[in-house]
Amino acid sequence: MLIREATVDDWSAIWPFFREIVAAGETFTYPLDLGQEEGRGWWLLPAPNRTVVAVADDGTILGTAKMNNNQMGNGSHVASASYMVDPAHSGRGVGRALCEYTIEWARTTGFRSMQFNAVVETNETAVRLYRKLGFEVLGTVPEGFRSPAKGYVGLHIMHRPL
Amino acid sequence: MLIREATVDDWSAIWPFFREIVAAGETFTYPLDLGQEEGRGWWLLPAPNRTVVAVADDGTILGTAKMNNNQMGNGSHVASASYMVDPAHSGRGVGRALCEYTIEWARTTGFRSMQFNAVVETNETAVRLYRKLGFEVLGTVPEGFRSPAKGYVGLHIMHRPL
Repeated sequence: MLIREATVDDWSAIWPFFREIVAAGETFTYPLDLGQEEGRGWWLLPAPNRTVVAVADDGTILGTAKMNNNQMGNGSHVASASYMVDPAHSGRGVGRALCEYTIEWARTTGFRSMQFNAVVETNETAVRLYRKLGFEVLGTVPEGFRSPAKGYVGLHIMHRPL
Repeated sequence: MLIREATVDDWSAIWPFFREIVAAGETFTYPLDLGQEEGRGWWLLPAPNRTVVAVADDGTILGTAKMNNNQMGNGSHVASASYMVDPAHSGRGVGRALCEYTIEWARTTGFRSMQFNAVVETNETAVRLYRKLGFEVLGTVPEGFRSPAKGYVGLHIMHRPL
């Protein structure tokens, strides 16, 4: 698996699983009917922020991550990131590789810490991975997310120093 | 004091104190050199979100608030808001009136709770007011904000049910 910069040409390969994940409505706070063009603008970030893809040896795009400052101005020393792994390729360590990549990016870019603003507490795979990689739950917005399957559940704010 | 919908024509009266507060860099995570046009776009929100001004009997604009959903999609039932009070008119209950207004807006609009994502912990006036109005600190991003006067300080995430 290789992780490399995403280009506009990658979007047609990202979009099918991006759309599937967003439409399922269980893990992201995006509109469930987010369109292809708008989604591209939200996900493919201009510099100095970055978007990458994880690519298999045969060229298949397995997942993607975007990374950015979480706040601006005098809060701009805290990074954030988001990840999407193609459900057809889950369980292969793609999410972990992407998360490690973004932590390393944030550290070498000079950020002091990293924060996730809205981790759905029922997204156990993600919560477990983030904990393994050094993130802690700073707090949980009670009933901050309406899961289609489980109803109102908490939204974790997670954080780790760098 | 009257609280009414903000219009584009109000911006020239808001901008001087908006700029002063942003440039001071002690309470907002906005770029300290935010420009007038860009600031207007960030502050004057299109419907269904709202921006209001607090106006004195003589027509002077004393402060302003914007209110919006804090997340989208399946997180869109949590509201958020931001407030700016002209430092020349502080201590007159303007902030409290604006905050109460936004809570009432969020409740009647159907939001289930209200969240502030980045309350600078050294902004004691704001933290005290929010606590009085029923908000609690869900968590604090350690060193999440670089105060020009006090160095790295925490950023509270605050929340209240509606």
